[in-house]
Amino acid sequence: MNTLRELQPHEGPSVTRDERREFLERVGDQIHREPRHDTEWVRVTTLGCCREVGRASFILSTPETRVLVDCGDKPGAEGEVPYLQIPEANPIADLDAVVLTHAHLDHSALLPLLFKYGYDGPVYTTQATRDLMGLLQLDYLDVAAKEGRTPPYESAMVRKELKHTITVDYGNVTDIAPDIKLTFHNAGHILGSAVAHFHVGEGFHNVVFSGDVHYTDTRLFNGASNDFPRVETLIMESTYGRRNDYQTDQEDSERKLIRLINDTYEQDGIVVIPAFAVGRSQELMLVLEEAMREGTLPTMPIYLDGMIREATAIHTAYPEFLRDGLRQRILHGDENPFLAEQFQQVDGGQEMREDIAGGEPCIILSTSGMVTGGPIMSWLELLGGDPKNTLVFVGYQAQGTLGRRIQSGRREIPFSDRGSRSEQLTLRFDVESVSGFSGHADRNGLENFVGTMNPRPEEILCVHGDESSTDQLSSGLYQKFDVRTYAPKNMETFRLD
Amino acid sequence: MNTLRELQPHEGPSVTRDERREFLERVGDQIHREPRHDTEWVRVTTLGCCREVGRASFILSTPETRVLVDCGDKPGAEGEVPYLQIPEANPIADLDAVVLTHAHLDHSALLPLLFKYGYDGPVYTTQATRDLMGLLQLDYLDVAAKEGRTPPYESAMVRKELKHTITVDYGNVTDIAPDIKLTFHNAGHILGSAVAHFHVGEGFHNVVFSGDVHYTDTRLFNGASNDFPRVETLIMESTYGRRNDYQTDQEDSERKLIRLINDTYEQDGIVVIPAFAVGRSQELMLVLEEAMREGTLPTMPIYLDGMIREATAIHTAYPEFLRDGLRQRILHGDENPFLAEQFQQVDGGQEMREDIAGGEPCIILSTSGMVTGGPIMSWLELLGGDPKNTLVFVGYQAQGTLGRRIQSGRREIPFSDRGSRSEQLTLRFDVESVSGFSGHADRNGLENFVGTMNPRPEEILCVHGDESSTDQLSSGLYQKFDVRTYAPKNMETFRLD
Repeated sequence: MNTLRELQPHEGPSVTRDERREFLERVGDQIHREPRHDTEWVRVTTLGCCREVGRASFILSTPETRVLVDCGDKPGAEGEVPYLQIPEANPIADLDAVVLTHAHLDHSALLPLLFKYGYDGPVYTTQATRDLMGLLQLDYLDVAAKEGRTPPYESAMVRKELKHTITVDYGNVTDIAPDIKLTFHNAGHILGSAVAHFHVGEGFHNVVFSGDVHYTDTRLFNGASNDFPRVETLIMESTYGRRNDYQTDQEDSERKLIRLINDTYEQDGIVVIPAFAVGRSQELMLVLEEAMREGTLPTMPIYLDGMIREATAIHTAYPEFLRDGLRQRILHGDENPFLAEQFQQVDGGQEMREDIAGGEPCIILSTSGMVTGGPIMSWLELLGGDPKNTLVFVGYQAQGTLGRRIQSGRREIPFSDRGSRSEQLTLRFDVESVSGFSGHADRNGLENFVGTMNPRPEEILCVHGDESSTDQLSSGLYQKFDVRTYAPKNMETFRLD
Repeated sequence: MNTLRELQPHEGPSVTRDERREFLERVGDQIHREPRHDTEWVRVTTLGCCREVGRASFILSTPETRVLVDCGDKPGAEGEVPYLQIPEANPIADLDAVVLTHAHLDHSALLPLLFKYGYDGPVYTTQATRDLMGLLQLDYLDVAAKEGRTPPYESAMVRKELKHTITVDYGNVTDIAPDIKLTFHNAGHILGSAVAHFHVGEGFHNVVFSGDVHYTDTRLFNGASNDFPRVETLIMESTYGRRNDYQTDQEDSERKLIRLINDTYEQDGIVVIPAFAVGRSQELMLVLEEAMREGTLPTMPIYLDGMIREATAIHTAYPEFLRDGLRQRILHGDENPFLAEQFQQVDGGQEMREDIAGGEPCIILSTSGMVTGGPIMSWLELLGGDPKNTLVFVGYQAQGTLGRRIQSGRREIPFSDRGSRSEQLTLRFDVESVSGFSGHADRNGLENFVGTMNPRPEEILCVHGDESSTDQLSSGLYQKFDVRTYAPKNMETFRLD
């Protein structure tokens, strides 16, 4: 088990203060070097995440500077990694900076790989994202090892990445190159998630990467910021970008979830919810804790499997990233909802899972959120055969993931029996989806993010969505707001100025 | 004076047969190497010539191969060269092949520079283009030297380029890389000009670069070919792409030109016509020779200044590139119109020019065609002050050139007095434009080139035109033919598959 201590090496004993000072001095010299080129152009290259969900990765470049934004994996398609080999990304070692918008693996998983390729510069992100990304990356290596896959890098690269991380608070304007200033703004998506604003040259161009955004407030977070000094180009997520991608509102969603749990409870069954360790899990914990406290749900154990407990601890460690009311509850008194006693960690391995599956009604939150590996696979095996139980999807299921296939009606799933022979597993439990808990803005939220954005961008690249989502959002935003819009492909380079 | 002999070094004494065989063997080994990558994608990068006329240059790339298509200068803007420094073009030395669509300097001028940057591979073009490009490049160096500019390469690089040239006939399918086959087709623009068709992978993708095209037949050439086995993407010139860019037809244009010459003749004046050495000059020679033979023009001297005579000789050397009737006249009997006795070379320098300017009515064809340097500058000085004389523009005048400024009404022009002090020259002669002699298809011709293209491409990138031209052609083709169209900027990279 990785501990938080391990994950903050530059505050622990493994990095000396001298090493850190030397690194920061070197970075400072690079940033404040005499620029060799005029800022005559700005380009963005798409290394992934175009007409697909996954492997988010972009290069922002000027004649002077190259910055990489995000470097994620693609859930359900391990082989499909960002196109780091194309000329615009090379040499990796010469990148000026790496910027991470948030910790989810489809944005962060392959970031340590850059250090394996010789990168030795800074990674800019928020404090909370720094801790979460280390946690999730180490878990990513664990899951790969358990499934017999060779991960693309070793844990030493995660440590190296963390040593090279420089944290930046929301709203702080930070020089990251002679001609680029970075400012993070709250994205409302998960703890520490950021909209990244880049000011290029002396007023030459401004480009905003939305990262993943949630436009309205949730139980955990304030809605995304969309107020900037200037912005000409917006690189916009499109997860729920299709014309009919409207989510039910959170109150209705909560009622539906509680009804599903009560129904399952009454028939003596177990509810299992695949969830990202970071984000949906904590949102659901708040919903379930309140429902049990207020009596709309009977009190029963809520088991957390995977890295959820560690991730939750990081939420508690950074209350300043949370919504006002929640922050107060955590800071003052003993009202921290994450510490309610019904939350129990699955820390006894497969034996404990078998006991839980054979026991009383309960709720299980388990990673991975898109059913692409991790303990959720055991839960499918243990609970999937019994019609009394219920599987509830609460988050986005990307194309190509087992989660998406089950959500779309598939009930016969291949099941690898501990690595040796393959079996078919027939799912007989009830499969439900509740849409209102997503960490992503729905179509309405995406339109509002753009429509109320101050100032309105002149050009929008719609990325991070299935082809139909990026296409429909692109044409929708064009028609509604009369801005130039595109739905790029992977491996394209756009001139922004 | 450079001779044709000098320009064909691999047939002359300076390249041994061994050297040539060694080069061809090396190229052959490269082409037939075991491919290291699957053809998973095709990209095109714009190094110039987007939303502008000039510095044509593109990179066609696959996981295995990078091919550079054209490498020109920008008339009237010496500093604006193709963006060879961007990552997609580098390292230049590792390019697999260079392809040249035609010899005009806005496509060929900077090609020798590649050899200075370490390129050592083949240049594919037609036979006629090989000879014309050498001629024009050496002239480009001469003009630069005379004007006190430092050219970006030396004549040794032109010789190196010519040694590395492999000529390809129209219609011959040629392997130029493990995954790319090239086929040239007649483009109808100038002698040897080609539409370049690239077949990528085994039926993976087909992309056509139009180069500069003339869709209908002219006196010199058959109209452009637009019949291909397959084509998904078309990179299309847009010089006359605006909605109202219709040229008068050639018969009307000829009548207008003859009237202008007769009027000037009757008032005892001289007609001066700025013309590219290659293309418009020969077209006009045919018109003027016929008019004098048929008596619609009085017989008078037609002076050729600049590289026109050499270029005309190359036309005579390659009759197979000319239109049927003209080819017969050159091949059989003594009817070669280019040898008519009224054509006289200005080979006596400035003194001869002064004699001509002070003498009897005559016609002068002089380079450069866009009044950006060369002997036309002397003719402006000698003839511009006298209202009896007439300047006639017959070709496209690019933005930023002195030709465009005079065409747009400017009459006070700066004049450098042999490199020392600057003077103003006031133009008092009549300035006329006759549009129908252009080597470029007009808007109608461009639409017809696409509309009758077999098969119809799925996607068209509109390049090689002012911003209004590429924009209007792009939206026009989209509306008329329901294909995806774009008007790229420079330094963009598009995924084609």
